[in-house]
Amino acid sequence: MKSESSRHDPTMSQSHDDVSPAVIKRLPRYFRYLRELLKNDILRISSGELSRLMHVTASQIRQDLNCFGGFGQQGYGYNVKYLYGKISDILGVTRGYNAIIIGAGNLGSALASSPIFEKRGVTLTALFDVNKDIVGSVISGYTVLHMDKLDDYVASNKVDIAVLTLPKEVVRETAEHLASLGIKGLWNFASTEIELEGSDVVVQNVHMGDSLMTLCYELTKHNQDDLE
Amino acid sequence: MKSESSRHDPTMSQSHDDVSPAVIKRLPRYFRYLRELLKNDILRISSGELSRLMHVTASQIRQDLNCFGGFGQQGYGYNVKYLYGKISDILGVTRGYNAIIIGAGNLGSALASSPIFEKRGVTLTALFDVNKDIVGSVISGYTVLHMDKLDDYVASNKVDIAVLTLPKEVVRETAEHLASLGIKGLWNFASTEIELEGSDVVVQNVHMGDSLMTLCYELTKHNQDDLE
Repeated sequence: MKSESSRHDPTMSQSHDDVSPAVIKRLPRYFRYLRELLKNDILRISSGELSRLMHVTASQIRQDLNCFGGFGQQGYGYNVKYLYGKISDILGVTRGYNAIIIGAGNLGSALASSPIFEKRGVTLTALFDVNKDIVGSVISGYTVLHMDKLDDYVASNKVDIAVLTLPKEVVRETAEHLASLGIKGLWNFASTEIELEGSDVVVQNVHMGDSLMTLCYELTKHNQDDLE
Repeated sequence: MKSESSRHDPTMSQSHDDVSPAVIKRLPRYFRYLRELLKNDILRISSGELSRLMHVTASQIRQDLNCFGGFGQQGYGYNVKYLYGKISDILGVTRGYNAIIIGAGNLGSALASSPIFEKRGVTLTALFDVNKDIVGSVISGYTVLHMDKLDDYVASNKVDIAVLTLPKEVVRETAEHLASLGIKGLWNFASTEIELEGSDVVVQNVHMGDSLMTLCYELTKHNQDDLE
């Protein structure tokens, strides 16, 4: 899956000056592998071992991770827990963000039922929909609220992120409305790119189809290679 | 347009060799924008206009697209239909791939109900599950089949891609089984990375959580900028 940020604030790159955007982009993958290691009680790992596990060069790993300091000593390896904590901190996992889902259809329900939020320190607090067959139903312990309750909900609850799993046709106006309510993060699955230029809202547009296309490309290439 | 028989034309791979992996990675996004343009009956576009629309530099666009040849003339702009066709062809959209979904829970149902396959020239042909409450039910016109029908199904139908929307715990063995049945493409949503080393199976591992982490990172960075 490919996702793109559509925020265009040139001042943004000030605070994590020590970590390059290219490294930031790779951190979620390190986060996943380090979590797996911790789950398996592996507390130290060398760049060579991590390299074999993640299929990236050891030199890339050292380049990516050594800038955090405090680990990666020769003959000792990385302290998995420290590194996981550091990366979690940089990625905002420890910030206690709250999220709501707008659109409680199949995809919204799939996300609500998955550990995707919890694993990243995000708390899902509510789901909203307009469909009367869905409003009032219970999904993963959450009673789906009607969209007409949204303004009151946001006024009286801390909401950092809105997950947009609603039809493409209504995503723009909904995004603008959410921004007007003061929600600062939009995770958009509506297969259209939202831009809220001039606003301070951060958007991640998810395009699942892009990875299907990459798969089709690789399949095609592969078939051709076989024939050579 | 390539005919079906051109699949077996080894000279075809020449055209792909010309395109760098970095450009390939960006093609699905061009594909989306070009599709939107076509939908709105825009048949010509300059690199400058495309640049403003996609928020990439005009020079990047020219660099990415001019290698395909036959368009991008000065003062004329790109022929949207030709470019869309060319990119579709490179990405395998015109190959008529068939897909099945393994795991017809919320995410599998969401994918089955969405236009994600159709838009990319992929035909969804069946859904499979093991849950007796789901097997036999109808999702988007497909009757969900039991997994014990999978081998027979693959033996008597052309299946290029299996979409894995099943629990993480069973994904590895399922992937190996699918590979043993001769399926060459796996689109894996099971939040674990599948590796089938030594096999000729192409895998795309989707990690939706990575983009949530990027969103959290940007939110955090943004908050810090505000405080500076």
